[in-house]
Amino acid sequence: MVFVAQPNSAVLVYRFGSPIETGAFVSEPKDWQWRTGALPAEWSVSGLEGKGFSINMPLQSNDSIVGLGQHVGGVNCRGSSFRMYSTDCPVHIPSLRAMYGAHPFMIILRERPIGIFIDSPGEISLDAGASTRGMLTAKVSTAGFYLTVIEGDSAADIVSSYLTLVGEPFIPPRWAFGYHQSRWSYGNEGAVREIAQKLGEHDIPCDVIHMDIHYMRDYKVFTINTDSFPNLPKLSSDLREKGIRLISIIDPGVKIEDGYSVYEEGKQKGYFCQRADGKGAFVGAVWPGPSVFPDFFREDVRDWWGKLYVRLQSEGFAGFWNDMNEPSIFYTPDAFKEYARKVRGFDERNEFSEALSNLIWDKGLTNQESYYDEFVHDVNGERVPNREVHNLFGTLMTRATAEALAAEDESKRYFLLSRSSYPGMHRYAAIWTGDNHSWWEHLSLNIQMLISLNLSGFMFCGADTGGFGGDCTPEMLIRWTQLGAFSPFFRNHAALWARNQEPWVFDDETLALCRSGIKMRYALLPYIYSEFVKSASTRTPFIRGLFLDYKDAETRLDEDQFLCGPSLLVAPVVRPAVHGRHVYLPGSRWLKVKASEQGLDAEGVVPSGESFVSAALHEIPLYVAFGGLIPMTAPRRHTSNTCPSRYKLIGFTDSSAECAVLLDDGEARYSTWQSYPKFICSVKKVNDEWKCDVRFESTEPQQLELEIELWDSSGAKRTLAWRR
Amino acid sequence: MVFVAQPNSAVLVYRFGSPIETGAFVSEPKDWQWRTGALPAEWSVSGLEGKGFSINMPLQSNDSIVGLGQHVGGVNCRGSSFRMYSTDCPVHIPSLRAMYGAHPFMIILRERPIGIFIDSPGEISLDAGASTRGMLTAKVSTAGFYLTVIEGDSAADIVSSYLTLVGEPFIPPRWAFGYHQSRWSYGNEGAVREIAQKLGEHDIPCDVIHMDIHYMRDYKVFTINTDSFPNLPKLSSDLREKGIRLISIIDPGVKIEDGYSVYEEGKQKGYFCQRADGKGAFVGAVWPGPSVFPDFFREDVRDWWGKLYVRLQSEGFAGFWNDMNEPSIFYTPDAFKEYARKVRGFDERNEFSEALSNLIWDKGLTNQESYYDEFVHDVNGERVPNREVHNLFGTLMTRATAEALAAEDESKRYFLLSRSSYPGMHRYAAIWTGDNHSWWEHLSLNIQMLISLNLSGFMFCGADTGGFGGDCTPEMLIRWTQLGAFSPFFRNHAALWARNQEPWVFDDETLALCRSGIKMRYALLPYIYSEFVKSASTRTPFIRGLFLDYKDAETRLDEDQFLCGPSLLVAPVVRPAVHGRHVYLPGSRWLKVKASEQGLDAEGVVPSGESFVSAALHEIPLYVAFGGLIPMTAPRRHTSNTCPSRYKLIGFTDSSAECAVLLDDGEARYSTWQSYPKFICSVKKVNDEWKCDVRFESTEPQQLELEIELWDSSGAKRTLAWRR
Repeated sequence: MVFVAQPNSAVLVYRFGSPIETGAFVSEPKDWQWRTGALPAEWSVSGLEGKGFSINMPLQSNDSIVGLGQHVGGVNCRGSSFRMYSTDCPVHIPSLRAMYGAHPFMIILRERPIGIFIDSPGEISLDAGASTRGMLTAKVSTAGFYLTVIEGDSAADIVSSYLTLVGEPFIPPRWAFGYHQSRWSYGNEGAVREIAQKLGEHDIPCDVIHMDIHYMRDYKVFTINTDSFPNLPKLSSDLREKGIRLISIIDPGVKIEDGYSVYEEGKQKGYFCQRADGKGAFVGAVWPGPSVFPDFFREDVRDWWGKLYVRLQSEGFAGFWNDMNEPSIFYTPDAFKEYARKVRGFDERNEFSEALSNLIWDKGLTNQESYYDEFVHDVNGERVPNREVHNLFGTLMTRATAEALAAEDESKRYFLLSRSSYPGMHRYAAIWTGDNHSWWEHLSLNIQMLISLNLSGFMFCGADTGGFGGDCTPEMLIRWTQLGAFSPFFRNHAALWARNQEPWVFDDETLALCRSGIKMRYALLPYIYSEFVKSASTRTPFIRGLFLDYKDAETRLDEDQFLCGPSLLVAPVVRPAVHGRHVYLPGSRWLKVKASEQGLDAEGVVPSGESFVSAALHEIPLYVAFGGLIPMTAPRRHTSNTCPSRYKLIGFTDSSAECAVLLDDGEARYSTWQSYPKFICSVKKVNDEWKCDVRFESTEPQQLELEIELWDSSGAKRTLAWRR
Repeated sequence: MVFVAQPNSAVLVYRFGSPIETGAFVSEPKDWQWRTGALPAEWSVSGLEGKGFSINMPLQSNDSIVGLGQHVGGVNCRGSSFRMYSTDCPVHIPSLRAMYGAHPFMIILRERPIGIFIDSPGEISLDAGASTRGMLTAKVSTAGFYLTVIEGDSAADIVSSYLTLVGEPFIPPRWAFGYHQSRWSYGNEGAVREIAQKLGEHDIPCDVIHMDIHYMRDYKVFTINTDSFPNLPKLSSDLREKGIRLISIIDPGVKIEDGYSVYEEGKQKGYFCQRADGKGAFVGAVWPGPSVFPDFFREDVRDWWGKLYVRLQSEGFAGFWNDMNEPSIFYTPDAFKEYARKVRGFDERNEFSEALSNLIWDKGLTNQESYYDEFVHDVNGERVPNREVHNLFGTLMTRATAEALAAEDESKRYFLLSRSSYPGMHRYAAIWTGDNHSWWEHLSLNIQMLISLNLSGFMFCGADTGGFGGDCTPEMLIRWTQLGAFSPFFRNHAALWARNQEPWVFDDETLALCRSGIKMRYALLPYIYSEFVKSASTRTPFIRGLFLDYKDAETRLDEDQFLCGPSLLVAPVVRPAVHGRHVYLPGSRWLKVKASEQGLDAEGVVPSGESFVSAALHEIPLYVAFGGLIPMTAPRRHTSNTCPSRYKLIGFTDSSAECAVLLDDGEARYSTWQSYPKFICSVKKVNDEWKCDVRFESTEPQQLELEIELWDSSGAKRTLAWRR
């Protein structure tokens, strides 16, 4: 039962049992040419009693394991256990095993690293040496799966091979690289206008405001509460004049209400998920109360659902945010009745018991496992219980949206965000890390997840800046904004019960330092946007653990610093009330730079190794890698479609350096990195003299002025200029 | 309304309103001579509307705040907020504000540090610059409080002054410094004997086995389930022959059951807390179901309660463990009825609402705030609601136990552990850090709490090694045991639902490395026991943040390394699957030592500063401070009452070093450090020659052999020997 495909010489794909195709691969395995082959030495796959498989992969004592995308517990997954099972998990504690996204791709870091992708749409539980230190065990719960094994010279090679199989990451329009302001919820027109006004008043660059669930009428998806938002198109166009776009949230649960068109149409056409017992549509309660759920496994349902977004676009939304799509289920009417029965039956004179514990301690009714056995999907004409294909629900919802948005105008990129995800969805949409908390620990987790998600191909990602649940403090907002400024997706978002955490709500210092962090982000957009697009197009992580580029960092797996693009090392502060932090610089020498509203200012060359560096509240430890050349420009209030004509560049090299700066309109879709309009700036030392050369690809702007500051490893600085 | 007392020139004690005496001070403030005085500049105290006070203390931008004993969030409390309100808190997440102990003593670290002790038995909420970065605000909820302000040259001076006011920390018998094995629960004689046997079989030193709640009959305190434990005195004496003692848990809740003698006697004498509405004894449900709670605020009740322990001792218990004494209340019968009514009344067709959220999400019925308004205490003849004196409940329960045990034999020390605590209780008992989890984050938290608790005078403390809740992994048990070996209280303990985590349950490597860590602890007992007793007797923290001794460490407040006693720097590994860790060494040079079953082996002299050091699974980064002399001896299976006659000492000095080694019987009580029987070993360089001098205090053993290995800062090693 083992087959081997070789789309690339280092990649082996094995098939076990009868897998359900997940869509993760860009071409469907069923169309592949298969031939027999053996598993890596010492590995074994065995069938489990009943159904499912166990994969045993022995570990060497110094192996580390990275990847697994969205998970708690750090960059190095070794020693922990995980559950790949899409779950609405409102509190990200260290023992949380399942999150919104299920990303069963990992890399064992060793002399010759090895990539592993376990493709199955049902639950996969993974013990990465938690029970037995020397054994990595995956338990697959479905009747079949694909096991992809990638050998490569480096982790970066393996990621690149993986992304060849599963496709290149989603690239949103340039405006999505701006700052996003959100909260649950800016619930009426006045509130949204006030936010836009405050952003202007306080000189805070911003491109997007998010509208959470309260813009709908009674939580009915694809409706607008016109009492609160009497003229959304007008609001939207007024904001667009200020450079701000609106994004709206959409959940999969459709309220059961007679006369509500989405419900009526779906009901009439039989689009909703059916109960496993055959007794009609499955009902689960979410925000609107009892709801039904579209069966996204059907193409006709996806077509219908996707077109609803297109229609909603006309209300003035520039992008969408698919939430609650694990799917989250608060309770089912049946479960609620059963619960009420138990409460009535409990004798309050009892001593402690399991039953009592369940009543008074457990998390209650939300997302009980049994709900996912109670409904089925139509998978290629077969009735399949949700549990068997659970991890695809959110991905297929998002695919529905993505395909409809792409079909609207194939020449343009769209913006789409999803909470649940599975490999393959990284081609369609961005994700965020879900409902984090205003905890310092979650700043660290933010860094760790950025690294892990980028390894897994979910490159346009970010955490809620300031933390979603709980109360953010002024200092935390400053530090988190400093980190968020280097995240691909940079959104300040907070929960209904949390205190306000917009940059201006605390004090002048907080406002000034948050503004400064956001302006720096805008000043660095030539670097961040260009390098992100290049990374995604060339299958290279944009947020990079140091081990990807520096062999000496591999045994360390630093969990609190990262590379943003190829050339900028960021060491954010993740503890309160500190005046400095420990930084490890791999390789040889680095150029220390200082963040400012204008981008970066070089401070001098520092050696590699361990150091404790100053990090007062306004400071973010930042370093340019040897060989790096970082383009920046004066910050603007919004990412505009007009490219600036003046750039400053900071470089660090003894011989040559090069960078590319995109000159596209920020929205047009290109199929390759090569085809993006851009200029490439090269500096080179020729006979002791420094030269700057600028090459244009696809476009030639009328005017371009470059001011280049070059540092060499001796610490000498020179400046060059280039203009046309 | 401001009064000043000056028990010591640097200490000012202010009285506001009408405080209830908490017993924190060794002499009662009501007996003090008061005179008027002004608060420190810029501080203000104002009355709150209704009742209570607000204390505003401006912070300077570089101030750090340390202390506050048991709390989550790290050594530096600045930027966070806290609630001093004894609470059973089963999950120690970062936003947890109230824990079991309420320890309102802190130190502002600045050029001239300042200590603050807010003495009030009700809730105190503290905003340590979380809302406004420049302001420390304490809100006191009671009608009066004492505010103690201590100025000193250093944090260590301030701790010493504080402990002059509140008394010297509890010193248990030497056997309590051994290894403790526990779980919830070794529930019958066979299970306990098996643990003792396995400890022997696997050559794991151990002094204590803890017996959790299942040894009782139906959770009735001071009863024995004789079906499971038919002959406890025999079990106890059999174990004692193997060097193992038994400790039993006791809760404050007394089961309501006719014929149960503790209940009947307490009821007859009116010893139980009364309902605030006057309708008889207050009933709250805990493990035994509906229970009543002794009113520990009454001396007669404390006398009665204390004698119950003395009686229980005869069953063979060597010490006691007061648990659940915040007090924890799972529910009240009234609250349960109200809850059932709400569940019945809920319409499951509703959309999301506050009511729904409370039903399906909230933690349910446990420890609802309102319970603590429903019962009163008899405080000096007045009926005072629990909320007003809430933080003293557990302390007074423990005082009852302590006074009875001390009265039994005043010449001997006893062992007593309590979950809830308040300043003053540090004189009577040990505490542990409560129900932590098998999370790597809780290894870090363990270090942070050891440092904070030691600053606050709760010196004999420790966390559950391996973590209480959740499943420990083999690697985590190894790393945690390596840390636990340096904790004053060193207990492996796990929850009912957690998997087993005794050292032998995983694999040979785990067993070997845990054994090695525990043996090292026993080998180092001459150092750990002697220095602990000296620290407690001389009012100096035993577990020390580096900032206490090294000015250059003050701005850093390292959160993951500490000094164990004056001379040993410990940098435990707190992350999974790492091969090394970052270490910061303050001061000048350090002697790197390696842990072994025989104690420590010196490896060489290393410079101060930042480094990344090897930390394979068997390694614990350890360093001897310049000037240190560490005594150790061959490890034994139990701390015995016979002192060893052969010691090895490792010293690091260019001129002289000294250490004291206790020679007491391990149980006798002494009133001062001076009066403990001991020998003092001094090494000194005289005219380029090293001399060793041994001085005896109070006792002179027949035989003593010392083998001393001395290192100087140049890295040269020499050995000295001394014998009689």
